[in-house]
Amino acid sequence: MKNIIWILFFFPVLAFAQGHEAKLKTIYTTELTDGHTYENLKTLCKEIGNRLAGSPGAAAAVEWTKQVMERYGFDTVYLQPVTVPHWERGGKDIARIIDSKTHGTVDLSALALGNTQGTGPGGLLGQVIEVKGLAELQALGSQVKGKIVFFNGPMDPSKIDAFEAYSGAVGQRSSGAATAAKWGAIATVVRSMSNRVDDFPHTGNQRYAPEYAAIPALAISTQDANLLSKLLAQQPDLSVYLESHGEMKTEKLSYNVIGELWGSEYPEEIIAVGGHLDSWDVGEGAHDDGAGCMQAIEVLRLYTHLGWKSKRTLRAVMWMNEENGLRGGQEYARLAKENGEKHIAAIESDSGGFLPIGFSSTGTDAQRSKLSSWADLLRPYQLWNLQKPGGGADIGPLRDQGTFLIGLLPDSQKYFIYHHTEADVFEAVDQRELELGAAAMAALVYLIDQEGI
Amino acid sequence: MKNIIWILFFFPVLAFAQGHEAKLKTIYTTELTDGHTYENLKTLCKEIGNRLAGSPGAAAAVEWTKQVMERYGFDTVYLQPVTVPHWERGGKDIARIIDSKTHGTVDLSALALGNTQGTGPGGLLGQVIEVKGLAELQALGSQVKGKIVFFNGPMDPSKIDAFEAYSGAVGQRSSGAATAAKWGAIATVVRSMSNRVDDFPHTGNQRYAPEYAAIPALAISTQDANLLSKLLAQQPDLSVYLESHGEMKTEKLSYNVIGELWGSEYPEEIIAVGGHLDSWDVGEGAHDDGAGCMQAIEVLRLYTHLGWKSKRTLRAVMWMNEENGLRGGQEYARLAKENGEKHIAAIESDSGGFLPIGFSSTGTDAQRSKLSSWADLLRPYQLWNLQKPGGGADIGPLRDQGTFLIGLLPDSQKYFIYHHTEADVFEAVDQRELELGAAAMAALVYLIDQEGI
Repeated sequence: MKNIIWILFFFPVLAFAQGHEAKLKTIYTTELTDGHTYENLKTLCKEIGNRLAGSPGAAAAVEWTKQVMERYGFDTVYLQPVTVPHWERGGKDIARIIDSKTHGTVDLSALALGNTQGTGPGGLLGQVIEVKGLAELQALGSQVKGKIVFFNGPMDPSKIDAFEAYSGAVGQRSSGAATAAKWGAIATVVRSMSNRVDDFPHTGNQRYAPEYAAIPALAISTQDANLLSKLLAQQPDLSVYLESHGEMKTEKLSYNVIGELWGSEYPEEIIAVGGHLDSWDVGEGAHDDGAGCMQAIEVLRLYTHLGWKSKRTLRAVMWMNEENGLRGGQEYARLAKENGEKHIAAIESDSGGFLPIGFSSTGTDAQRSKLSSWADLLRPYQLWNLQKPGGGADIGPLRDQGTFLIGLLPDSQKYFIYHHTEADVFEAVDQRELELGAAAMAALVYLIDQEGI
Repeated sequence: MKNIIWILFFFPVLAFAQGHEAKLKTIYTTELTDGHTYENLKTLCKEIGNRLAGSPGAAAAVEWTKQVMERYGFDTVYLQPVTVPHWERGGKDIARIIDSKTHGTVDLSALALGNTQGTGPGGLLGQVIEVKGLAELQALGSQVKGKIVFFNGPMDPSKIDAFEAYSGAVGQRSSGAATAAKWGAIATVVRSMSNRVDDFPHTGNQRYAPEYAAIPALAISTQDANLLSKLLAQQPDLSVYLESHGEMKTEKLSYNVIGELWGSEYPEEIIAVGGHLDSWDVGEGAHDDGAGCMQAIEVLRLYTHLGWKSKRTLRAVMWMNEENGLRGGQEYARLAKENGEKHIAAIESDSGGFLPIGFSSTGTDAQRSKLSSWADLLRPYQLWNLQKPGGGADIGPLRDQGTFLIGLLPDSQKYFIYHHTEADVFEAVDQRELELGAAAMAALVYLIDQEGI
């Protein structure tokens, strides 16, 4: 008798879970046997290539992703105007070690940092002073006056999560030039944000402080950072010649690209899923973040292809200008508020097209508990990690509207091999890993759509 | 008062766990900043290369790994004689489509399967009949008489665990020729065991049935399997010319290579950690299983380097002949029994040098519970999956001695790109992933050594 009561009590819950289980299986099987994510990423990378905000590549990517979503027959596809900064590299970056005695030179693999002011064609020559981080620079203070500051603090290899190692080192890149300028330095050179020793320089954002000079700032490869450090130890008065041509141009009009499937029961509740469409101006922006954009489109395509109607409104969003301004994410949130939209959840994929191992999130305890309650459904797909705090840069501005923020969490080990380099090309993305990511996002969208959050 | 009692009660447990935590951190930090695994793998792959049992490569690998462990100063290093089968490929394998009308030919990327008898230099020409698996062959029965059976069942892409997809398809390779011979087929061609479509043929073991003819058997690349299938659909009477030169030679004397650190408290309790030293005769045996061997040596090197004394005896074992005979694993277990050794646990790494995500295991409920009890200590290292049943081929024979069998569990997505091919070279292994695997094994050895199992 007791058993019967238990069965009657649990039957609806079990049936519900079994329904979810079958749906998740359908999502994964469809994606892994007949997914479009990989082919779409190939087109984005190979026919458009890199796409810094304000560039012709970015404009082409806006047009192409709009067409792709229209072709898939989403309920509506539209552009959301965003004014973006427009930085141009302007030419080949040079970092050259000069031996004052022998006049020998060594060219280092270099890339000017994004949003920086170039040296101009005349270049700049200076003595180099090496520091391991911002604290060491602050301690030196005005001793760096008239010199080139060389930031050589590596990403800590003992950190298991590579994003943690990145966080610990990236200040040298993002605010190194501003801090060095405060003490009168004439330029900065930064060890690339990579956890490998190789020959790729990594660009990335740099923010000047308005009250100090906008001095040139370049990244050099980790291999060349090791070399420069070694030579400096032998010859502390070593000089380096720098040449870069970066310039901030007039702001441009660009767009977030949005595709929607309207909800059948709660159309006013929006679940946004997306990535950022812009990339740096090197490589093909494959992992960062073509992968996330193509995965987001795929989530809605899977619904369309399977003939599923969502209860809530699903929105695939290609945010513009994450890399050097975040204008797309800010404008998206501003308009959502202005239009009285209700985003119950936003999921961003912007950590590379690698093996997904879970989801990071930022939200209330209730929201995070709800996510955890799906652990048994997600574990068969190796989505174990549901505890990490996180989300995504573009969805961050939605937080103060109560939106539950979620980040697809791929394994982090290899991201910083490719991040912001010429090596971030289509061939660096593995088809199954990319598809597993798309399926993971679709699975989570399905659960949130069915159960709310 | 109650609080004080609780604190007194839990204090030793907490202190214990915190001690473990610090030790695991030391293991990981040491390995990720100053590990030897990657450099050792480079030497094995580049200076010795592939090493099928009985080959000069295998002999060189035995000698070199012995020297490496001696150089690290392990308490003892010795060889354990094992008689191994000795198969030789004997020449270039050919699989060529012949169009009987146009006399046009297409050469397919092919590799004879291991332990197979070759066609000999005269080759063999036959009509091809395609099946998707062993069941379809059984249904056809004597219709395949005088023909070449083409096994074209793919690894199921919808399986999340690639080893599961492999298990579902590998029967075509391992017993396809034996089954086809029963029905009078003259040879078999098998679609490579790969979850990618590419041009690499994958060799692997094939077992004849003593009561039927030993017919030639070759693998062709997945790309060429698709091509052959397409052409067969257009022209069902298509012929294929096969040429292979495989031969079983006289058995040879080889060795398991064993290094030991003697236990300080329970020296009679042995924890074995290892991989198999042999590989197929193509590529460099980097993922399969140079990675596992170098990780196992590294576990003991870390103990030596850190000056840690183990309570129990730690043994690094390089088993010989996993690929085409398993003689090393069998002889190791036989001798362990004969010598009255007590192996409390055996850990094998033989699933590639990829990102570790947990451990598989086979043992009693108590043994598996003990492993699960360390979940909180292992999770910070992304070792989430402690539930999967498994272990390793070489340690399997120890099971009837009560040994707890454990397999390092790396992510499986990419293993079958490289497995048994020319592509399984050093460059296919990522340094951090390899090191994370070595550290994971060392961490588990540490916990078992401290707490028993």
